[in-house]
Amino acid sequence: VIAVLCGGVGAARFLSGLLDVVDAGDVVAIVNTGDDTELHGLSISPDLDTITYTLSGRVNPATGWGLAGDDFTTMDALDALGGATWFRLGNLDLATHLYRTGRLRAGASLSEVTADLARAFGLGLRLLPMSDDPVRTVLELASGGEVSFQDYFVRLRHSVAVKSVRFAGADAARPGPGVLEALGSASIIVIAPSNPVVSIDPILAVPGVRALLASRRRDVVGISPIVAGAALKGPADRLLAELGSEASAAAVARWLTDVCGTLVIDEADADQVAGVESAGMECVATATVMKDAETAAGLARTVLACGGTPDPDRMQAAG
Amino acid sequence: VIAVLCGGVGAARFLSGLLDVVDAGDVVAIVNTGDDTELHGLSISPDLDTITYTLSGRVNPATGWGLAGDDFTTMDALDALGGATWFRLGNLDLATHLYRTGRLRAGASLSEVTADLARAFGLGLRLLPMSDDPVRTVLELASGGEVSFQDYFVRLRHSVAVKSVRFAGADAARPGPGVLEALGSASIIVIAPSNPVVSIDPILAVPGVRALLASRRRDVVGISPIVAGAALKGPADRLLAELGSEASAAAVARWLTDVCGTLVIDEADADQVAGVESAGMECVATATVMKDAETAAGLARTVLACGGTPDPDRMQAAG
Repeated sequence: VIAVLCGGVGAARFLSGLLDVVDAGDVVAIVNTGDDTELHGLSISPDLDTITYTLSGRVNPATGWGLAGDDFTTMDALDALGGATWFRLGNLDLATHLYRTGRLRAGASLSEVTADLARAFGLGLRLLPMSDDPVRTVLELASGGEVSFQDYFVRLRHSVAVKSVRFAGADAARPGPGVLEALGSASIIVIAPSNPVVSIDPILAVPGVRALLASRRRDVVGISPIVAGAALKGPADRLLAELGSEASAAAVARWLTDVCGTLVIDEADADQVAGVESAGMECVATATVMKDAETAAGLARTVLACGGTPDPDRMQAAG
Repeated sequence: VIAVLCGGVGAARFLSGLLDVVDAGDVVAIVNTGDDTELHGLSISPDLDTITYTLSGRVNPATGWGLAGDDFTTMDALDALGGATWFRLGNLDLATHLYRTGRLRAGASLSEVTADLARAFGLGLRLLPMSDDPVRTVLELASGGEVSFQDYFVRLRHSVAVKSVRFAGADAARPGPGVLEALGSASIIVIAPSNPVVSIDPILAVPGVRALLASRRRDVVGISPIVAGAALKGPADRLLAELGSEASAAAVARWLTDVCGTLVIDEADADQVAGVESAGMECVATATVMKDAETAAGLARTVLACGGTPDPDRMQAAG
């Protein structure tokens, strides 16, 4: 089993590459639900949906989220009524949220609904929410006050400075069914190239997860979402800097070093190797910018080659 | 003020006619919410929406409910996921439910949301839910078991025999803001041609409403939804028969006699006049089948002419 800790777009692209090189039945994706939100009474799980839509080949390629070819006539009508439409829900995408919400209200767990949605979308891997209990990422703004993740990310377009991040509900959350089992039995645990602050940290905040990864640190391989000092997507670079670190692969290494033995960084970041190693991690440099399926598959192969006990020769071959 | 007790389609058509002959600012519609339901986490108020859509000129003319020109791509996508789609929510119609649900979750009352929706749809009358508290019509089936109104009406296509009807929550419900005031101050109270069993009775079940109407019985004018022994729409005829009455204008009179002094029946039901009168009501016969705007306006004029103290001369002129 290959276990992958996942946020949204970056993780979905990595999983696509991984499924090109290993059997889907061997992959367990453990997905951040700290971004989940309720809008208009609907339960929305953006990271789970982005992965489901991407792996089914139905994701909107222009955005990396939502469904290809979707319309927004419901949002337009809601806008005409004066409703909140900053979170754009496409007509087809809405069906996913109606389905999820209906099932949850009828008593199903998020894990059950997620498995059924994954099946309906034709996925072969196991897709596990990090927890069936609500955990919500909350950001304290430098200007004062707290906002939810989607308020920060979508409504405010992550254009405001953040002072601190917390994961409301995490202390009382139980890991989702199968999460600790997958992490305990996996031959390799991958930390996808997702935002360490708001995509990976919420998963680590679920009781038991951080300790388990720390105990298996040599089998944990991370992929830096920071390339040449910038996030490929989203605010990971600014968040790291705002929270007292810096936007670099070495800073990602320092952020993850307690739970992760190896960091895969981009070949453009040769100057970061020393910094990653001085954070106590093995470092492998390769092409990490998944601009096409071949690169994603190549990245997956490199990551898998890092599994288990680090081997300096293999590192050189991959680099 | 003219107060009108309303169900869905029949009431909406009557209100259309009424607004052709009086100023919208003089009309207060008090609407059944016993049909309200939650589906996929969305709060749906079918009778309020049917009235809003009809009076804004946007109702689907083929069905009498939903919005004209609406698409169902969200329902089709939900169907593909295995979700429940027996209650067909159009893409544009969904915006209304998203708006209502979002506002209710944010703490607004149903009355407030209804007023804002009515304004957004350009209505001039006052549209009042019978209560802001949940009242739910529950039908006991002859075959055993209870179902909600929408289960009965839509999912089972009202093709099952009913043994009894109750209004869950009614005892604890408070009349919506303005309801008792409108009923107390109205110069005439109209009972629209709606199903007496499942559209009017829920309104009468809200504490205070039945007693107030009974005390003003001579100012209350009902319109029979049964014409020539049959309901123009829906199961009113079968429900009356199943509950021990019969499908006739006279039976409607007996059903409503404690709260209503005059019943307007269809001109095709001349044989029902004696039955209505022996139920203790004045009886006026006119064209009640609102096949066009002229008939609806004419019916409204006849009803208004019945207001206040019954006058035998006026009855003859209307008949």
